Amino acid sequence: MRIYLDNNATTIVDRRVKDAMMPFFVEKFGNPNSLHSFASDTHPALKCAMGQLYNGINANQKDDIIITSCATESNNWVLKSIYFDHILNSEKNHIITSEVEHPSIIAVCKFLESLGVEVTYLPVNSQGIVEVATLENAITDKTALVSIMWANNETGMIFPIKEMAQLCQAKGVLFHTDAVQAVGKLKVNVSDVPVDYLSFSAHKFHGPKAVGGLFIRQGKRISPLMHGGEHMGGLRSGTLNVAGIVGMGYALEIANRYIAYEDKSIRYLRDKLEDALLDIPDVFIIGDRANRTPNTVLASIKGVEGESMLWDLNRSNIAASTGSACASEDLESNPIMEAIGADLDLAHTAVRFSLSRFTTEAEIDFVIEKTNEAVKRLRAISSSYAYTPKNHKSEL
Amino acid sequence: MRIYLDNNATTIVDRRVKDAMMPFFVEKFGNPNSLHSFASDTHPALKCAMGQLYNGINANQKDDIIITSCATESNNWVLKSIYFDHILNSEKNHIITSEVEHPSIIAVCKFLESLGVEVTYLPVNSQGIVEVATLENAITDKTALVSIMWANNETGMIFPIKEMAQLCQAKGVLFHTDAVQAVGKLKVNVSDVPVDYLSFSAHKFHGPKAVGGLFIRQGKRISPLMHGGEHMGGLRSGTLNVAGIVGMGYALEIANRYIAYEDKSIRYLRDKLEDALLDIPDVFIIGDRANRTPNTVLASIKGVEGESMLWDLNRSNIAASTGSACASEDLESNPIMEAIGADLDLAHTAVRFSLSRFTTEAEIDFVIEKTNEAVKRLRAISSSYAYTPKNHKSEL
Repeated sequence: MRIYLDNNATTIVDRRVKDAMMPFFVEKFGNPNSLHSFASDTHPALKCAMGQLYNGINANQKDDIIITSCATESNNWVLKSIYFDHILNSEKNHIITSEVEHPSIIAVCKFLESLGVEVTYLPVNSQGIVEVATLENAITDKTALVSIMWANNETGMIFPIKEMAQLCQAKGVLFHTDAVQAVGKLKVNVSDVPVDYLSFSAHKFHGPKAVGGLFIRQGKRISPLMHGGEHMGGLRSGTLNVAGIVGMGYALEIANRYIAYEDKSIRYLRDKLEDALLDIPDVFIIGDRANRTPNTVLASIKGVEGESMLWDLNRSNIAASTGSACASEDLESNPIMEAIGADLDLAHTAVRFSLSRFTTEAEIDFVIEKTNEAVKRLRAISSSYAYTPKNHKSEL
Repeated sequence: MRIYLDNNATTIVDRRVKDAMMPFFVEKFGNPNSLHSFASDTHPALKCAMGQLYNGINANQKDDIIITSCATESNNWVLKSIYFDHILNSEKNHIITSEVEHPSIIAVCKFLESLGVEVTYLPVNSQGIVEVATLENAITDKTALVSIMWANNETGMIFPIKEMAQLCQAKGVLFHTDAVQAVGKLKVNVSDVPVDYLSFSAHKFHGPKAVGGLFIRQGKRISPLMHGGEHMGGLRSGTLNVAGIVGMGYALEIANRYIAYEDKSIRYLRDKLEDALLDIPDVFIIGDRANRTPNTVLASIKGVEGESMLWDLNRSNIAASTGSACASEDLESNPIMEAIGADLDLAHTAVRFSLSRFTTEAEIDFVIEKTNEAVKRLRAISSSYAYTPKNHKSEL
């Protein structure tokens, strides 16, 4: 048995999704933009998939959903095109984001700063979210765009996106949300939440890697990031990823069917794990569980280096994370822990467990057992944690 | 029987390639950047695929081959990053390209012109290629980059890339080539041809769609187009497309095995088709066949609208093209025909047949027969072509 609790990094492709993609490699391989039957072979499935995406976030047919290669592309696209369309040669010169965005937002903001854009990185409160009042105070008449994530990848904490979007709408400021951790896990309804742009990624909801999308509200079109042919109405060039689009559409339809299940059953499993973690002394959980995606728990286990914990878990065939896989090659402290003001010791001890609809109770029970064992072992050899077994007599 | 002669638009995925990709959707789905066994499951295949790509173009291990979502991305990346790295805040302000590049070059150049960059679009000669002397005359001390395609997608004509790259090297000007139509069809050896940047795309050589690459010569690194996490050494962020990379690597290895076969046997089939087309009166072929990719023929059939021809061929289950699929949604004249100076009538009559290693002689014989029938039928109803059946008596 191997147990995968790193679903915020990527997810297994649902077998139904894989099956739906299969005909589009060999049997129906045409370029959809060509003028022959090999092209038109692909059209019904593409049309179906696009319908699944529009329905999946309740978009209007006059809105655009443009296929990209990933949410990193969607995020780069929005921020850079807002720069070219609304900042360069304009009175506006200000973008607002948060301190806890994904690197594909933060790194673009740093790049735009190098071009002279003023960027405000909003702090989060002790719950790890940006408060609406904090955003409101930051908006000026120079603000061109606000970009705030729907749910945080590390903590699962859900941001007040509807209120923020309404605020921006009232103030005439464009609003983008990176909804990678929300779409497919939470009900995302763009007809109810007035975001202008919304990024999502198939491989976070049991679709294939390397396909994502950008929702663009009617009337809010932006210049392309990928200039070229007339694909996708000229908004995103490049030969269409037929298999990927078909997979993403179906994956979203399926994921939305399981939202109630995740909210009840996966939340129950997550809470069971979380309660067990809290039974261990000196364990801290980040954020109120009621306001988190139901699959995520980020725990700080005092005296236990996050990477050591991962290593122990991995030896028990359990996959977890110390933080975003996008930044995990270096053993740095967890940035969200720093953002919420945790001391550095604690920031190095964060472990994230992220479940999916494929997670079972037997798996969670096993993880609880192995986590307890790992904490005992690692605290016993920790130089920073004064762990004293009950029958131990100090030799000092 | 359906016959696919539109391989310059996209290709069927080789079944061996599809099989190689299959484990990376469900069985080995981990994010390669995570720190657990689901991640390391993917590493051997990724390492193998990257080796296949380096070997496939004879790159040095100190060069970079960075995975992108397609050649459109690779092309956008090079041109835009050269702008930010070498033009903005610099003395240089000039990019040279050709009139017959793919839209993903031309459209980026138009965008850069809107930012104040001076772009020279070099004309082609009657063969449809840019001459080295034409390039040499255009280079100034303001020139930051030259971007010329290795082989043209419409005609298959091969450009003197080695000489151009050597010229640019001697003059200290960066050189990029869009080698989408060359890689996998011709021997591409970056150790022999001193290009600094080279774009390629898997779906042109029987790999999957939506994965491509950019070769970056050692010492010539550019800023990312996709800012974000530390993937690919920070040069291209976004979760790695494991299945796509595995597929592209293997597809290139296989394609290179067939280069001699394509050069002999597919060239023979192409020449057979071309000879048959030339047997039809008032048919013109663009470019010397000895200097073309062996799979491509672009024919202009006087009096026969290209789209009508496609329609007739499609009814006979034959897929061909009037031009790049990237621009084919609108029924415009073929841009390369205009570039070589063909009159507008002729430019509307271009039909491209592009073969692959899966093309058979029986297919070509059938295409010859059906093409002849179509030309007869369409010329008979053409208002612009004075086609008079032998037994026809004018009633005027």
